[in-house]
Amino acid sequence: MSRILPLCPLTREAFAPFGDVIETNGAHHYPINNGTTMRFHDLARVETIGEGARTLISIARGDAFTLPLDIRMVERHPLGSQTFFPLHSRPWIVVVAGEEAGKPQAPVAFLVKPDTGGLRGVNYHRNVWHHPLITLEAQGDFLIVDRGGEGNNLEEYFYEEPFRIE
Amino acid sequence: MSRILPLCPLTREAFAPFGDVIETNGAHHYPINNGTTMRFHDLARVETIGEGARTLISIARGDAFTLPLDIRMVERHPLGSQTFFPLHSRPWIVVVAGEEAGKPQAPVAFLVKPDTGGLRGVNYHRNVWHHPLITLEAQGDFLIVDRGGEGNNLEEYFYEEPFRIE
Repeated sequence: MSRILPLCPLTREAFAPFGDVIETNGAHHYPINNGTTMRFHDLARVETIGEGARTLISIARGDAFTLPLDIRMVERHPLGSQTFFPLHSRPWIVVVAGEEAGKPQAPVAFLVKPDTGGLRGVNYHRNVWHHPLITLEAQGDFLIVDRGGEGNNLEEYFYEEPFRIE
Repeated sequence: MSRILPLCPLTREAFAPFGDVIETNGAHHYPINNGTTMRFHDLARVETIGEGARTLISIARGDAFTLPLDIRMVERHPLGSQTFFPLHSRPWIVVVAGEEAGKPQAPVAFLVKPDTGGLRGVNYHRNVWHHPLITLEAQGDFLIVDRGGEGNNLEEYFYEEPFRIE
């Protein structure tokens, strides 16, 4: 029997243990380009370590998931952070998990939607457990900023029983 | 009297001397996440050098420009590349310039629009002359990936006479 995983609203404060919410609302900003552009500055802690580490920019095209959805596993990247920024305004789901005694804890799920400041993305900090991309309603593209280089940058963990998002 | 600067369509080939076009069409891609996501992989050469260099993710909110528009200057960043990826589907303009004898050549202008592969962005390679953000039709947000750290990362050049985009 699945345990129910509630969908929480995404806020900077709630997400802080896992990474950054990339959004303009409440962000440090200042005018550039002779006042024709506002820069919302330095919104994510990008980290890439290890041999040959470099920053990659890619696009992920996620198939649409439907609810209810069973969360059976999480993964993490020991050598780098990973940013997902939606290129569309539909909702999507971010699932993360803390760690205790070397294993992921029960996951936490956030529903991500644009707010009055526009589209919002997340940056998983290095080594933070998270579920792969969950897009809702329709296939959607996301800009990805993560790490390339040598070494194994993927760990996976499968829960004994799934958690259900209704 | 202004010299006329034609608006060229943006293609990978035409933009190659200046940087990367970040787009899914024609990009190397492969399935991940058990086949639920397609990854269009490593679309830009991100480079950050110098003391304390790190990769920043920011959002630039550009005011709308109207045509005709006079291009009077270009700038460049000697310590890092700079990615602009639109978070909207309206057209925008990218102006870049090669270099000869230590000075920017006459600029080249590209009109950027989404194509069948979706939204398209650009990555200016390190030290490539370019004009600040030119958004059209309405104020627009762009995800920026560039460099933070010590040192002077900005050079500007003012042309003796402007170039006009009609």
